[in-house]
Amino acid sequence: MSFRIEKDTMGEVKVPTDKLWGAQTERSRNNFKIGPSASMPLEIVYGFAYLKKAAAHTNCELGVLSEEKRNLISQVCDEILDGKHDDQFPLVIWQTGSGTQSNMNVNEVIANRAHQIAGKAIGEGEKTIQPNDDVNKSQSSNDTFPTGMHIAAYKKIVETTIPGVKQLRNTLAKKSEDFKNVVKIGRTHLMDATPLTLGQELSGYVAQLDHGLKALTNTLSHLSELALGGTAVGTGLNTPKGYSELVAKYIAQFTELPFVTAPNKFEALAAHDALVETHGALKQIAVSLNKIANDIRMMASGPRSGIGEIIIPANEPGSSIMPGKVNPTQCEAMTMVCAQVIGNDVAVSVGGLQGHYELNVFKPVMAANVLQSAQLIGDACVSFDVNCAVGIEPNHEVINKLLNNSLMLVTALNTKIGYYKAAEIANTAHKNGTTLREEAVRLGYVSEEDYDAWVKPEDMVGSLK
Amino acid sequence: MSFRIEKDTMGEVKVPTDKLWGAQTERSRNNFKIGPSASMPLEIVYGFAYLKKAAAHTNCELGVLSEEKRNLISQVCDEILDGKHDDQFPLVIWQTGSGTQSNMNVNEVIANRAHQIAGKAIGEGEKTIQPNDDVNKSQSSNDTFPTGMHIAAYKKIVETTIPGVKQLRNTLAKKSEDFKNVVKIGRTHLMDATPLTLGQELSGYVAQLDHGLKALTNTLSHLSELALGGTAVGTGLNTPKGYSELVAKYIAQFTELPFVTAPNKFEALAAHDALVETHGALKQIAVSLNKIANDIRMMASGPRSGIGEIIIPANEPGSSIMPGKVNPTQCEAMTMVCAQVIGNDVAVSVGGLQGHYELNVFKPVMAANVLQSAQLIGDACVSFDVNCAVGIEPNHEVINKLLNNSLMLVTALNTKIGYYKAAEIANTAHKNGTTLREEAVRLGYVSEEDYDAWVKPEDMVGSLK
Amino acid sequence: MSFRIEKDTMGEVKVPTDKLWGAQTERSRNNFKIGPSASMPLEIVYGFAYLKKAAAHTNCELGVLSEEKRNLISQVCDEILDGKHDDQFPLVIWQTGSGTQSNMNVNEVIANRAHQIAGKAIGEGEKTIQPNDDVNKSQSSNDTFPTGMHIAAYKKIVETTIPGVKQLRNTLAKKSEDFKNVVKIGRTHLMDATPLTLGQELSGYVAQLDHGLKALTNTLSHLSELALGGTAVGTGLNTPKGYSELVAKYIAQFTELPFVTAPNKFEALAAHDALVETHGALKQIAVSLNKIANDIRMMASGPRSGIGEIIIPANEPGSSIMPGKVNPTQCEAMTMVCAQVIGNDVAVSVGGLQGHYELNVFKPVMAANVLQSAQLIGDACVSFDVNCAVGIEPNHEVINKLLNNSLMLVTALNTKIGYYKAAEIANTAHKNGTTLREEAVRLGYVSEEDYDAWVKPEDMVGSLK
Amino acid sequence: MSFRIEKDTMGEVKVPTDKLWGAQTERSRNNFKIGPSASMPLEIVYGFAYLKKAAAHTNCELGVLSEEKRNLISQVCDEILDGKHDDQFPLVIWQTGSGTQSNMNVNEVIANRAHQIAGKAIGEGEKTIQPNDDVNKSQSSNDTFPTGMHIAAYKKIVETTIPGVKQLRNTLAKKSEDFKNVVKIGRTHLMDATPLTLGQELSGYVAQLDHGLKALTNTLSHLSELALGGTAVGTGLNTPKGYSELVAKYIAQFTELPFVTAPNKFEALAAHDALVETHGALKQIAVSLNKIANDIRMMASGPRSGIGEIIIPANEPGSSIMPGKVNPTQCEAMTMVCAQVIGNDVAVSVGGLQGHYELNVFKPVMAANVLQSAQLIGDACVSFDVNCAVGIEPNHEVINKLLNNSLMLVTALNTKIGYYKAAEIANTAHKNGTTLREEAVRLGYVSEEDYDAWVKPEDMVGSLK
Repeated sequence: MSFRIEKDTMGEVKVPTDKLWGAQTERSRNNFKIGPSASMPLEIVYGFAYLKKAAAHTNCELGVLSEEKRNLISQVCDEILDGKHDDQFPLVIWQTGSGTQSNMNVNEVIANRAHQIAGKAIGEGEKTIQPNDDVNKSQSSNDTFPTGMHIAAYKKIVETTIPGVKQLRNTLAKKSEDFKNVVKIGRTHLMDATPLTLGQELSGYVAQLDHGLKALTNTLSHLSELALGGTAVGTGLNTPKGYSELVAKYIAQFTELPFVTAPNKFEALAAHDALVETHGALKQIAVSLNKIANDIRMMASGPRSGIGEIIIPANEPGSSIMPGKVNPTQCEAMTMVCAQVIGNDVAVSVGGLQGHYELNVFKPVMAANVLQSAQLIGDACVSFDVNCAVGIEPNHEVINKLLNNSLMLVTALNTKIGYYKAAEIANTAHKNGTTLREEAVRLGYVSEEDYDAWVKPEDMVGSLK
Repeated sequence: MSFRIEKDTMGEVKVPTDKLWGAQTERSRNNFKIGPSASMPLEIVYGFAYLKKAAAHTNCELGVLSEEKRNLISQVCDEILDGKHDDQFPLVIWQTGSGTQSNMNVNEVIANRAHQIAGKAIGEGEKTIQPNDDVNKSQSSNDTFPTGMHIAAYKKIVETTIPGVKQLRNTLAKKSEDFKNVVKIGRTHLMDATPLTLGQELSGYVAQLDHGLKALTNTLSHLSELALGGTAVGTGLNTPKGYSELVAKYIAQFTELPFVTAPNKFEALAAHDALVETHGALKQIAVSLNKIANDIRMMASGPRSGIGEIIIPANEPGSSIMPGKVNPTQCEAMTMVCAQVIGNDVAVSVGGLQGHYELNVFKPVMAANVLQSAQLIGDACVSFDVNCAVGIEPNHEVINKLLNNSLMLVTALNTKIGYYKAAEIANTAHKNGTTLREEAVRLGYVSEEDYDAWVKPEDMVGSLK
Repeated sequence: MSFRIEKDTMGEVKVPTDKLWGAQTERSRNNFKIGPSASMPLEIVYGFAYLKKAAAHTNCELGVLSEEKRNLISQVCDEILDGKHDDQFPLVIWQTGSGTQSNMNVNEVIANRAHQIAGKAIGEGEKTIQPNDDVNKSQSSNDTFPTGMHIAAYKKIVETTIPGVKQLRNTLAKKSEDFKNVVKIGRTHLMDATPLTLGQELSGYVAQLDHGLKALTNTLSHLSELALGGTAVGTGLNTPKGYSELVAKYIAQFTELPFVTAPNKFEALAAHDALVETHGALKQIAVSLNKIANDIRMMASGPRSGIGEIIIPANEPGSSIMPGKVNPTQCEAMTMVCAQVIGNDVAVSVGGLQGHYELNVFKPVMAANVLQSAQLIGDACVSFDVNCAVGIEPNHEVINKLLNNSLMLVTALNTKIGYYKAAEIANTAHKNGTTLREEAVRLGYVSEEDYDAWVKPEDMVGSLK
Repeated sequence: MSFRIEKDTMGEVKVPTDKLWGAQTERSRNNFKIGPSASMPLEIVYGFAYLKKAAAHTNCELGVLSEEKRNLISQVCDEILDGKHDDQFPLVIWQTGSGTQSNMNVNEVIANRAHQIAGKAIGEGEKTIQPNDDVNKSQSSNDTFPTGMHIAAYKKIVETTIPGVKQLRNTLAKKSEDFKNVVKIGRTHLMDATPLTLGQELSGYVAQLDHGLKALTNTLSHLSELALGGTAVGTGLNTPKGYSELVAKYIAQFTELPFVTAPNKFEALAAHDALVETHGALKQIAVSLNKIANDIRMMASGPRSGIGEIIIPANEPGSSIMPGKVNPTQCEAMTMVCAQVIGNDVAVSVGGLQGHYELNVFKPVMAANVLQSAQLIGDACVSFDVNCAVGIEPNHEVINKLLNNSLMLVTALNTKIGYYKAAEIANTAHKNGTTLREEAVRLGYVSEEDYDAWVKPEDMVGSLK
């Protein structure tokens, strides 16, 4: 492998000739061999590309950067956003906690690539664009990294998480409507209870996801606040007047998302409660999805010795040893995702609570966890939807058998003969293995006619909301 | 001890004569000897008192309960809310997960106490009021317990948590204003950085708490939804027409809080994502408070060999062995509360994700954790406020010394001479133990006049937002 | 209420006349109004009583405390251990993070009570015993509180947790033996699988608890290390020679538990990884118990429309609205305990990771969580045992029906006709709603005789380990 | 792209021609598009390679597999272990929770590759080796996946985690010895306290890591238990006699690690408490490392306005905006790893507690988290060691200045003049900004000679353990 020499304020560093990055990226590669390389999410790199471009435009508009430099920086940012330099960002999450080296990685790649675009070989002559003085102008790692991670997280949530959850939510809503007349036994404490419709059951899931989507959407306001313009400690040192507002406007324009400049830059650097807040909502959705997926696999259990009230698609052979076995695998993938998200929430909190003075230095780990959770929830919802939810069908035969068996239909008699006598009927039928009707009549509490008139499962389900 | 006989559908139970509770409460006392007795929060009992009263009014208004019974039930509920029967609720959190036995505890106490009010001894003659058929009319544990816990949590948050956090927030805002001109060194990565004012630093804390309060307030909408009217499985079986809306209206009237009937009762029984959501916001506030309290104790550290930039009140002797020691004890109480809240958040999630079919049976543990966190945060903020925050004062001498020492003032030169030369100045001064000014001049990069004109800490802090 | 004046190094404080505590306890009461009063676990107070007595004996033996003072201190400690002064410890968990004020609470109560024993009224003349110079001699809060919490946690685990878990484990082991021949369907992914015996199923639970008990026992070694002798920062300043070893010996003697002096006192003050370690094992047991309790309620579900393979005791009416309903309430209490323990584990970790320099100041919250988890697990196991596990019985009729229905018995044919043909048989039977035997023969893969010889559930369960 | 047709019991699937995998792998690729592809850790694939080879040897030795087939399977397993087929395992963590499809992925790759080795093109003629009947013989996903993950986790811990932690531990131990005479101020509650040596301080870290290593080692026994031989539900159906013990012996031989067959296979399939246990110890180590890294960055803070008692290596420019800034970046990487590990612990617990009946279907997520944590801790310790710990040096000038300033040296007077007078001296000096010596003499409590004889920091540090 051949190398060239790159320099930073600490001296010279050998960098592979074919790489666009510079001295500080290379130092970081060598100093942080922790876990697989390039673990820093590309989404954050793209977030940086948006903000570097916006900063160049702003700096130019405010008179501190030439149009030529702005154009060069912009062009490289666009290339990055087109995915042309994905292999130029080799750094890991587990670096400096401000993400300084990923900021410098972007600065260096832009500077070197701009040099190429300007018609020179990397290392040839003076740099057309300086990583610190030009690309990073009016910026610090301390305000760029949080800006990049807010952009990345916001985009991921509106492009992946929310559409994914909505897709599943809509399927469940449609199924809820389809099955609104399928009366089945209800279960509380896992035990037989009074009836409801399968549609009602599913409507609860829809309501959960609606609440989750609302909660998640509520967090976007905090996430839309950008730290950029705070520079080193939040004071905005070395930024031209009007910079913060303008750069946020450019970012909003380039991303087509409603970003604004953070009203308080000190909070925006020193705390990442916005990520804590957003991940809290992701965790809430995970809690909901776990319940939903779990119910579905319990209701689909069997085929012969379980509950078996619904049928879900058989997507793959379920067992390497048991022939013909089919399993609720989408439910399993989903609940594993939920477990991960609930764990990630703690990682985000533990990072969030340990900010010191003017800076929280758990930025990369917090951002990476938010991005992973947002991706996994979105993907898992789509996977669950297309491979499971759309195919859910009731097994009417089983549903009817289990419904009519139930002793809890006796609850309909409470308002007619009182709780105590109703309980006696149910307990007697349970002990004798008989039906409610038999015992109700035998005990002399209800006539056959009244029983048939009063105990109708279809009258016990109210009206579907 | 003397006993009387109480009965339920399973048979007879001996209950201490002087207690108002009945058979099912006594069964629960014996069957769940887990942890200290009476751990079920009284706030939930009070929540039940509100809802039992509201149910009685609604049942009466809808023609299924006599006025006499309504009045008796109402009167006992008022007594409970006056704290007259606090010792009649001996049950623990660790009971049935629907809280059925706490519902029955309330039903039994109301029934027996109503009998007394009606002029009879407990156990004398037929019960004036039946626990199940009258007090529990149009209700199930499955909709009353979630209603009770929503009432309890909502009240706790608006009466204790939010006022407590606001009180601290307001003090910090006032201090931020007071200290808006106190220029001090900033610190990032715990290392010397460019200056800011103490007021700016505190403004970041205010912004954190403002965001936290907003996030918490966002969750109140979900929490305002009441399950009551869903009865056993969400269908509203055995409720009169119009019951759900009317009972929510009464609860809103009695509590003076904006409760509404849950649009989807299946969600309201089977999932407690509202508690997950609310606790997520409490956790976010805990994350913020941990950062704030931690900063304050670091800045107050010393008195002679620490940072010592601020002085906090000395409230008690700090050490049993080191004479004269004073410690940041309020910060410690606060951060311990934060640790608990972050743990509680996981308990709430683990409970929330394990609902089954029509019922989540982790109600008591979820509610107890939300109530504890809400109480602790509110109390800790008030304690921290009155015993620490109000007394924070800058130590100007230390602040100035640490400010003027700092090598990071060099950052002001970036826009004048470029990042690389500025770095050389700082590195040289660091190596030689000299001042920036000396090295700037000696290296020939800046004249003395320019240095003095350019490097002014008070010009480096921007304007306080 | 009448008051007397108590003094500490900060001045005078009014204390209720009838209380034994002094100035610092009273200051703490006023400065930390966070949550309910007296939340500091009494077990820790008792731990202090053991160590104060041991310190007095050691100080006397090493010549720095008179026999008279030793005897007075010892006598009060014994009174405390007899529970005679439980109402003299009003402080909360949420105080200084070193527990200094609880140490002083104990010192003050001992000093004042000793004064009474010496025949004087509190406040009359000079104190017979000084709280700091005598009771706290050769000690600091920084080494006493960790010692007290280790004593408390160790005792709780060996007296409550381990016996509770063992009791349940032994019942499950007995049931496993009782049901070793009850062949039933197995379930993987909640779906029908090959058979096993009910005894085998329960043996898995026993193995889980055995591993948990071993893991918990492994942590006792770290917990047996006592900080006492480290005093303020771990150096043992102001202790006589030989103090650490001797005081640990006395504590071991008084508690009859194998305590030793910590080999490294700096770790013992600055980190509480021993609590993290112990709680990690408690959490593991909670994870196990959650699985066990969950399985049992699923297997017991019904009575008519669930799985219903086992019958568990009906301990109380299960519903306030559904007559005759019985629920798996012990499983619910148990799983709620598990949720709490898993949350507490995070609280302990968050406290544990934030020690600073020579002291971790999350001692009270860490200790309180360990004690709560240890108590809850022990109690819940006993409750679950006596109210549920001992009464578990198989429902043979259901078990046999579900077993013989199962398509997964086809697995026995793998080694005879290969996985693919076996799968074809199972899939065909599933599609046609027929039996395996019918399809095996119809497809021509197996003769009737071979089928009957090869597919015998009782031959498919191996031998019970 | 060209495709070939592969079949499984559900029918035909198109697979890219150049891939070794078969129908079920391809189905899984299509059905689980959740997160980045190939997220299933390669370590688990290698674990499978060991066990497939061992199973082939065992099956052959027990007479149920031909030598030819054994040799073919063995040869492919060796190729996999040599890393020759890393790109043949495209599946994700978020698949079926038993890892069935990863088991089949391995089975299919082995079968197809064996066919090649046997001189045929994939798809040409009948398969030389059947994925289910041969490669998977005497196995189920349900016992192979847990076996594979135990092998992977055990190897990772003994090859990466333990050596990494030990390396850092040894450096800290050496530094502790080097600095055993460097007396410095101690700090409790972040406040000035009595002195200790820097060596003593570091010895506490060593003790933490020693305890952590012991705790981690304690968990290896559970992890050494292999599920293999349990097959579908733990009964060992379709395994030849003696299989479990022999296959474990082969695995131990091939891996050179002390694996044994699990005494209870039902536990080994249905619960993964071994992973919970192991991760609990990893979390404990993370808690320790967080404390250590945090202390080091606080002690190294400055360079001029912080604590500055130690100097750590300057590895990279610390700021993109503040020239000359150097940051404790290794401490930040380390504490971010700790945050992740603490979060992962919750993910593992949440997975662990939701096993159902005979199978826990959170295997992949649990295993992936254990492997990530084990890797990150090991790597981070090495990175921290070579880039930070080995270079730690005391800043004697600062240390001495901060030591001699301290008011807490007064503690040495406790045993001479009592706690109260000592406190008066310290408080007066604090108020007056004077020295202890001045006030001690002025107050008339100590003569100058006695003061100098009694208050010697170097006599206050005891002897280094």
